[in-house]
Amino acid sequence: MAEESDFLARGRAVTARLWGARAGGQELPAQRLAPEFFSLVTQFVFGGFWSRPQLDLRSRSLCTVAQLAALGKTEELRGHLYGALNIGIPREELIEVLMQTACYAGVPAAVNALNAAADVLKA
Amino acid sequence: MAEESDFLARGRAVTARLWGARAGGQELPAQRLAPEFFSLVTQFVFGGFWSRPQLDLRSRSLCTVAQLAALGKTEELRGHLYGALNIGIPREELIEVLMQTACYAGVPAAVNALNAAADVLKA
Amino acid sequence: MAEESDFLARGRAVTARLWGARAGGQELPAQRLAPEFFSLVTQFVFGGFWSRPQLDLRSRSLCTVAQLAALGKTEELRGHLYGALNIGIPREELIEVLMQTACYAGVPAAVNALNAAADVLKA
Amino acid sequence: MAEESDFLARGRAVTARLWGARAGGQELPAQRLAPEFFSLVTQFVFGGFWSRPQLDLRSRSLCTVAQLAALGKTEELRGHLYGALNIGIPREELIEVLMQTACYAGVPAAVNALNAAADVLKA
Amino acid sequence: MAEESDFLARGRAVTARLWGARAGGQELPAQRLAPEFFSLVTQFVFGGFWSRPQLDLRSRSLCTVAQLAALGKTEELRGHLYGALNIGIPREELIEVLMQTACYAGVPAAVNALNAAADVLKA
Amino acid sequence: MAEESDFLARGRAVTARLWGARAGGQELPAQRLAPEFFSLVTQFVFGGFWSRPQLDLRSRSLCTVAQLAALGKTEELRGHLYGALNIGIPREELIEVLMQTACYAGVPAAVNALNAAADVLKA
Repeated sequence: MAEESDFLARGRAVTARLWGARAGGQELPAQRLAPEFFSLVTQFVFGGFWSRPQLDLRSRSLCTVAQLAALGKTEELRGHLYGALNIGIPREELIEVLMQTACYAGVPAAVNALNAAADVLKA
Repeated sequence: MAEESDFLARGRAVTARLWGARAGGQELPAQRLAPEFFSLVTQFVFGGFWSRPQLDLRSRSLCTVAQLAALGKTEELRGHLYGALNIGIPREELIEVLMQTACYAGVPAAVNALNAAADVLKA
Repeated sequence: MAEESDFLARGRAVTARLWGARAGGQELPAQRLAPEFFSLVTQFVFGGFWSRPQLDLRSRSLCTVAQLAALGKTEELRGHLYGALNIGIPREELIEVLMQTACYAGVPAAVNALNAAADVLKA
Repeated sequence: MAEESDFLARGRAVTARLWGARAGGQELPAQRLAPEFFSLVTQFVFGGFWSRPQLDLRSRSLCTVAQLAALGKTEELRGHLYGALNIGIPREELIEVLMQTACYAGVPAAVNALNAAADVLKA
Repeated sequence: MAEESDFLARGRAVTARLWGARAGGQELPAQRLAPEFFSLVTQFVFGGFWSRPQLDLRSRSLCTVAQLAALGKTEELRGHLYGALNIGIPREELIEVLMQTACYAGVPAAVNALNAAADVLKA
Repeated sequence: MAEESDFLARGRAVTARLWGARAGGQELPAQRLAPEFFSLVTQFVFGGFWSRPQLDLRSRSLCTVAQLAALGKTEELRGHLYGALNIGIPREELIEVLMQTACYAGVPAAVNALNAAADVLKA
C-alpha cells in the first residue's frame, strides 16, 4: 500500500500537467482560511483519482469540464478549462462540450457555462 | 438552412450507432404518454447537438455518462452506458469516469452511479 | 394578525379542493414517523402560501407541477398531478408542462417526470 | 413533417411576443463565443416546445419562471420575468410564484429569486 | 393549538438569539419587494421548526450551515455563519463542517462555501 | 507527513465506531464492480476528513445526515442514520434534523428523507 506522500507526489504531478506553474500560484480566500483542505484535495482528487492509469488525462479533463458545467460550478469550470487547454484539448471541442450540456442539465446551465467560459475560450 | 427532416435523419444516424436495433425497441411509459416528445428529443439532442462534427462520438458519450452520473439520472445513465459500450469504450474506462464523479458531485453520487451501472458493466 | 388555527383552517380548505376526501386518506411511512411535520406543512405550505389571494389556484398548481418535475421529486409530482386534474386542468396541458421541463432542467428530468406521470395522466 | 426553417420561424414568433425588439438586442459573452448555440435554442426551445398549441403562452411563462427560480438560474429568471411582464402577467402574480418557491425548493431559493427579481418587478 | 402570533413570537426569540439587533437590520432587495414573505419565514422557519424543543440550537445551526454549503446557497450561508458564531460555535468547527462538505456534495461545493465564508470566519 | 496506511487505519477506526461489525458487512453491487473505490473512500472520507480532531463525531454525523437529506441521497442517508443511532444520537433528534430540511431544501426533500428513514428510526 502506497504512503500518503505518494498521494501528494502523484497529485502534484497531475496538477503540474494541468496548470504548470499556475498550480500553486492562485490565491483563493478559501486557501488562506483552510490551507489543509487544499492539501487534502491534491492528495485525494489528483493523487487518488486522476493519477490512476485506467483513464487518460484528456478523457478525465473533458469529463470534469462536463460535470462542472452541468453542476453550475462556474469558478471551478474556468480553472479546468485552462487546464484542458494546457494539455492540448482544442477550444472548439470544449465549446461543444458546454453546448451539449443543454441536453442533460437544461439550457440555462449551458448558457451560464458558456458565459463563464467566454474569456478563457475566446479565439 | 437544413430541413427538420434533416434533424431527424441525422439524429437517427446517431442513435443507430449508439444503440443499433435497440434504439427504437425500448418502450418506456413516457413513450406511450408523450410520443411526440421523443421525436423532438431525437431531432434536437441527437440531430441538433450530437451530430455536429466539432466533437467525436467517443468524447460526447463519455461527457454524457459523466453528466448523468453527476446529476443522479440513473435510468438514463444505464442507457448511455450501453451506448458507450456499443461504440467501443472499454468498461474499465467507464467505471473510472463514475468513480471520479465522487470528486465533483460527492461520494454518494458516485456510489449511486456505480450501483446503477453494476449489471451493465459487469465483466 | 391571524391565529395559527386560521393557518390550519385555510390550509385544509386548499387541500380539500386539491384532493378532497383523499387529502387525509394517504398514509406515508413519514406520516407515522413524524405526524407533527405534516400538520406544520398543511399550515405553512397550504395555509400560509397557497391560500393567499394574489394568485389563482390553477396557476399555483401548474407552477408546483413544473417545479416538482424540474427538481426530480417524482412522488410529490404524482400527488400534485392528481390535484391538478381534480381542479380541472386538462391532462394535455399537464403533459405539456412536463415536456417543456426538458428545456430548463434537461431531457432526463422530463423523461423521469413523464414516466412518473404516465399512469396518473393516461387517457 | 415541418422544415427546420419552420422551427426557426415559429421560435422567432414566440420570442418576439416575449421580448419584442429586445429579443435580438441582448449581447451575452456566450453569444459571441457560440452563436450557433443560440440559433439551436431558438429553434428547439421556442420553436419546438413553446410554440406547440396544447398550452397557452401565459401558462408556459409562469411555469418557466417557477422552474428557473427553483433551479437557481437567476440570470435567465430575470429575462423571463421581463417576458412575463411583456405578455401581461401582473407583477403581483410573479412575486407570488417566487414566494411559493420556498415550499418546494427551500427558503434560500425563494430569497435568491426575489433578490434577483427585485429591480425587474419593483412597482 | 397555538395562535399565529405565537409562531411570530417564538420565531423572533430564535432570530434574536442568532442575530441579535442585526436580525431586523439587514435590508435585502427582496425585503422591499415582498415584505410579507419574510414575516412568513420568521413564523414558519424559526417559529415553526427552530423553536421546537426536540433539538438544541447549536445542532440546528450546524445542520443549517451544512445544508446551505451543500446546496450552494452562499448568501444565506454567510448569514447563518454569523448566527453560529453569535451562539458560540467556534470558527474552527465551522470551517471543519465546510471542509467535510467535499465528501457529500463534491469538492467545488466545499471550495465555494469556504470562499464565501472566508471573511466571516477569518481569525 | 502521514503514510497512506495511516489514512486507512484512521478511516477504519471511524467506520468501526459508526457501524461496528456492519462496516465491512454490507455488499453493494458497486462494491463488486469497483472495490478499489471503497478503499479510497475509507481513506479519504473517513481517514482524511472525519478523523480530524477539530470537530466531534456527533457533530459530523448530524451534519452528514443533514446534507444527505438535503441532497436527496436516501440510500446513504439510511446508512448514516444507523451510524448516528450507533454513536448514541437519539432518534427524536434525527427526526428533527430531517424535518428542518424542509426549510432549506424544500418540503419534498424532507418528506423523501422521512420516508426513507421511517423503518430505521421507528420507535
